[in-house]
Amino acid sequence: MAGRVVLVGGGPGDQDLITVRGAAEVAKADVVLYDRLAPNPIELARPDCELIDVGKIPRGEFTPQEQINALLIQRALTGKHVVRLKGGDPYVFGRGGEEALACMEAGIPFDVVPGITSALASAATGGVPVTHRGLTQGFTVVSGHVPPGDPRSDLDWAALARTGTTLVILMGVLNLPHICHALLEAGMDADTPALTVERASHPDQRVLRGTVSTIAEACADANVQPPATTVIGRVGELDLSGQS
Amino acid sequence: MAGRVVLVGGGPGDQDLITVRGAAEVAKADVVLYDRLAPNPIELARPDCELIDVGKIPRGEFTPQEQINALLIQRALTGKHVVRLKGGDPYVFGRGGEEALACMEAGIPFDVVPGITSALASAATGGVPVTHRGLTQGFTVVSGHVPPGDPRSDLDWAALARTGTTLVILMGVLNLPHICHALLEAGMDADTPALTVERASHPDQRVLRGTVSTIAEACADANVQPPATTVIGRVGELDLSGQS
Ligand SMILES: C[S@@+](CC[C@H](N)C(=O)[O-])C[C@H]1O[C@@H](n2cnc3c(N)ncnc32)[C@H](O)[C@@H]1O
Ligand SMILES: C[S@@+](CC[C@H](N)C(=O)[O-])C[C@H]1O[C@@H](n2cnc3c(N)ncnc32)[C@H](O)[C@@H]1O
Repeated sequence: MAGRVVLVGGGPGDQDLITVRGAAEVAKADVVLYDRLAPNPIELARPDCELIDVGKIPRGEFTPQEQINALLIQRALTGKHVVRLKGGDPYVFGRGGEEALACMEAGIPFDVVPGITSALASAATGGVPVTHRGLTQGFTVVSGHVPPGDPRSDLDWAALARTGTTLVILMGVLNLPHICHALLEAGMDADTPALTVERASHPDQRVLRGTVSTIAEACADANVQPPATTVIGRVGELDLSGQS
Repeated sequence: MAGRVVLVGGGPGDQDLITVRGAAEVAKADVVLYDRLAPNPIELARPDCELIDVGKIPRGEFTPQEQINALLIQRALTGKHVVRLKGGDPYVFGRGGEEALACMEAGIPFDVVPGITSALASAATGGVPVTHRGLTQGFTVVSGHVPPGDPRSDLDWAALARTGTTLVILMGVLNLPHICHALLEAGMDADTPALTVERASHPDQRVLRGTVSTIAEACADANVQPPATTVIGRVGELDLSGQS
């Protein structure tokens, strides 16, 4: 009998920001493969559940991602109920689509449970709504892993500077100076508010505020480290934090 | 003693797609004000909890939103633990920012619990990851409530057509023909895949697939009604649904 694979979004890190359905899937699982940025499954899983920390798979003959796909399939083929627990939402820069494709190709039934993406959780815990009447009618979430203008980039940063939406940058700590420079070059108002949220929803979360002109230096001065998310846009005029 | 207000994202509709923390907040509440698109709180709340369906507030001397803000504050001032349960995420087109501001102005402690936005849930249940290696490094979520070029629009649709990100349109059923036309005018490839998901995560969910050139007519032919979400972008080449 074939098992199944469920991709579960674990949310930004706080144990209680997983969904009720996601927690129930982890509680039923025979095997959980989890990431560094996902909540630790140990409190949610059955005592006899096999927990595999895939954040520790070294790059060898195969990439860690190939090895994760192989593990998912191998465990499911032995009839196990396998949960792939990911940080945030499985389909937001999580390579969840690749894992789903690998299951499909192997003929293994799978399902997806969405999670709270750190893109939204970071803004909210930083005190900023990503949309707000009179300020913006949308938001854009991009990877900052590849710098603007790099041949590996699919993004048009000049267009990104002009959409009128709030811009949320994940995996951008290293390239933040290049990104802000590209946005300013493309004509973004130099006073556009910006904030960076490091380790959103964790007890040691930090929030830095500035503008698109100052935030990169502020992050460097404060030695901001991944995981961190930067939000750029007029919604940064608001500060809804600090009253709870 | 002052009460408090918690804005809770209820997710796209399925009862189990609320977060563990969101469900716990509803279970503790003295009063829950809930929307038409939020999950029904009756199974989560205490039997003696006051449940107010704010989807039913008529427009009178004040707008429904002003009345919701007034109710939140009035109940909290009598010392109640008030939950404002919203569909999706509170800060994605939910007017959650306005409710948070109203609480701040009234000096009432408040907190926000993020929710699964229908923007991501609709794409996922439609079988599409919003980002995917080799296809796109980002996604953009916009309101289609105001048509492109309307003076009330903050959005630059020509720029939106060129970012290279997946475009997710909420509240766009009525304006979908105008929106697709504007994207094509701005140079978007006419064969760009598109899908519309009506009532994502509900038992009667429907998914329609097409391209940016055909999706508006397909929706009209199928008489798609709100709530529905349209996803436009190369990620629509994938179909990860239908194996669970
Ligand atoms: C590989 S991406 C995965 C994103 C994830 N799937 C999601 O939806 O949140 C990792 C990036 O997410 C962001 N991130 C994840 N957890 C975060 C947190 N707790 N606070 C701030 N940013 C976070 C950071 O930008 C980090 O570099
Ligand atoms: C006022 S907006 C609120 C969005 C909400 N705050 C969120 O994050 O999902 C309402 C729009 O969300 C989208 N929506 C809400 N629930 C949906 C569902 N179950 N399926 C598809 N779209 C949905 C529709 O585009 C609808 O017009």
